[in-house]
Amino acid sequence: MTTALKNDRFLRALLREPVDCTPIWIMRQAGRYLPEYRATREKAGSFMNLCTNPELACEVTLQPLERFALDAAILFSDILTIPDAMGLGLYFSEGEGPRFKKTVSSEADIRALPVPDPEKELKYVMDAVRLIRRELNGRVPLIGFSGSPWTLATYMVEGGSSKEFAKVKGLMFDSPELMHRLLGTIAKSVTSYLNAQIAAGAQAVMIFDTWGGSLTPRDYRAFSLNYMREIVAGLKREADGRKVPVILFTKGGGAWIEDIADSHCDAVGLDWTVDIGEARNRVGAKVALQGNMDPAVLYAKPERIYEEVRTILNSYGKGPGHVFNLGHGIHQHIDPDNVAVLVDAVHELSEPLHS
Amino acid sequence: MTTALKNDRFLRALLREPVDCTPIWIMRQAGRYLPEYRATREKAGSFMNLCTNPELACEVTLQPLERFALDAAILFSDILTIPDAMGLGLYFSEGEGPRFKKTVSSEADIRALPVPDPEKELKYVMDAVRLIRRELNGRVPLIGFSGSPWTLATYMVEGGSSKEFAKVKGLMFDSPELMHRLLGTIAKSVTSYLNAQIAAGAQAVMIFDTWGGSLTPRDYRAFSLNYMREIVAGLKREADGRKVPVILFTKGGGAWIEDIADSHCDAVGLDWTVDIGEARNRVGAKVALQGNMDPAVLYAKPERIYEEVRTILNSYGKGPGHVFNLGHGIHQHIDPDNVAVLVDAVHELSEPLHS
Repeated sequence: MTTALKNDRFLRALLREPVDCTPIWIMRQAGRYLPEYRATREKAGSFMNLCTNPELACEVTLQPLERFALDAAILFSDILTIPDAMGLGLYFSEGEGPRFKKTVSSEADIRALPVPDPEKELKYVMDAVRLIRRELNGRVPLIGFSGSPWTLATYMVEGGSSKEFAKVKGLMFDSPELMHRLLGTIAKSVTSYLNAQIAAGAQAVMIFDTWGGSLTPRDYRAFSLNYMREIVAGLKREADGRKVPVILFTKGGGAWIEDIADSHCDAVGLDWTVDIGEARNRVGAKVALQGNMDPAVLYAKPERIYEEVRTILNSYGKGPGHVFNLGHGIHQHIDPDNVAVLVDAVHELSEPLHS
Repeated sequence: MTTALKNDRFLRALLREPVDCTPIWIMRQAGRYLPEYRATREKAGSFMNLCTNPELACEVTLQPLERFALDAAILFSDILTIPDAMGLGLYFSEGEGPRFKKTVSSEADIRALPVPDPEKELKYVMDAVRLIRRELNGRVPLIGFSGSPWTLATYMVEGGSSKEFAKVKGLMFDSPELMHRLLGTIAKSVTSYLNAQIAAGAQAVMIFDTWGGSLTPRDYRAFSLNYMREIVAGLKREADGRKVPVILFTKGGGAWIEDIADSHCDAVGLDWTVDIGEARNRVGAKVALQGNMDPAVLYAKPERIYEEVRTILNSYGKGPGHVFNLGHGIHQHIDPDNVAVLVDAVHELSEPLHS
């Protein structure tokens, strides 16, 4: 028997059910802008150690909840755990971001990729989910997550971050059938990974499609959204007698939210380049919307943060279905005091919209 | 008396006049993917020397025309010549891109910024325009260009390239009136810079708004598009008895093309994240469209390049008003032979659309 949720605003908003005020969480809320995070990261020795140690991952997951009245916790992990579990050897080099020791390029490489067993190669993630759920003790829901197949493929083929996507797009344009095989294997892996997170205790899941916005509309549908849809269809979306909502977030995907909303997901994440009120008009009552403040607003004064929160809340308008968030992860040089301002502003200013 | 244009397809297409086939030029067509460019760059010693030496700038401007049947030449220069002429001290550091010795942050800094005299501080650019026009001898039209005020401001405030725009957005959010003052000064400078390019011989001009897509829709209108509109209104759009068309290009601005088309520009540049046929439906007969192949298609085989060209041409459909281009600058590791394939494919496959 699991503990009853004390604050379920986030889950209710994702399912477009009435709430007392608009819930908020923040992408990368357990991150470098928090001195206590930097202390734990220091103690861990490396970013990978922090990800693979369930106690430390739990510790940093809970840190922002101690400071701010956030309405959800998100598993501390990395989007690249799956390719690492496939044997590519993830590491982080100073200033260069994530890198892989092995990359994927030939048909043989792609055929050889296994679908990892989440309770074996990714057991450290499941252990973290279980531990965080226990430690949360029903305070707020826990979000599990994964990178999207296209986004994971970009790192696996390029060997790290990329600006031009020369190799992965070369593969996509010249050998679409091979690219589809690769994405199919990743989609299977993501499905089983997210189902395992749900079984371990994740109460909502989110797919981060960080690089879907680098594609043409046609290629986005065929090579990114298509596989996210496949994952959504394969998820066991219930736990503890409650629906487990699925959020899809394509950075730079504002033009395609009608298509994303048609994927049977429960909510669509928005970056700040779309007006959330217009987005609501476009997708109607189909999905909830999550977003979408420009993360750079947190460099501004409290009054300006209040003003921007009010603008976004009013743009979305009355009624349920809005989860407040930034349009991308919080920047590392943000003053945590400004995050407190943001969280309080969202709760305070949204109350009249739900009366 | 100036020489008559032998090939005016590009100018006609920008004004939505009939053409025999769709014209093409390529952003950054005089660039590092060409061995002859790399040789001239080597000879110049530094990128800045190449920009500031009219003979060498002319030499690299003409290089791609020797290889490919391109329908326009574009002045070889940098978007950051204006802030350099304002006294900020532009330099290029290996691997880091453009940097400024001085940055702009306080009210005093902003008030002190001069509007450069194009025939004094930027005479090297005007000399290059005059020389290129002479050397072109009417072969194809010459495009002049500038960065947009918002894009220039990001570099001037950040001191170089940025991912998070912490300083410039901090200024915009906290001191919008100061930001408007800065943008006003830059807009005046760009207007006089482009008018001088037109007087020196530029037959079309383009404004590159590389970073407008980092803004919310509201901030884009107020802090980027607003100033491009001001520039368009201030341009002398005629030379040699012929209209000088203006192209506006906001990278990542696909959602806002209706607003851009309302700025009284002649053409809107598109990156590859929008379908050009849908874009045409949205802006109707108001403007021409320039774009929009994913630059990464040039990594693929000739057959695939042909296929993509056909898709884009057919998406735009019959009739005038399309200038083919990539959706962003050509990448440095592209094989020049693939560029030849692209240029020929555009001319060959577009003929039936203009009959």
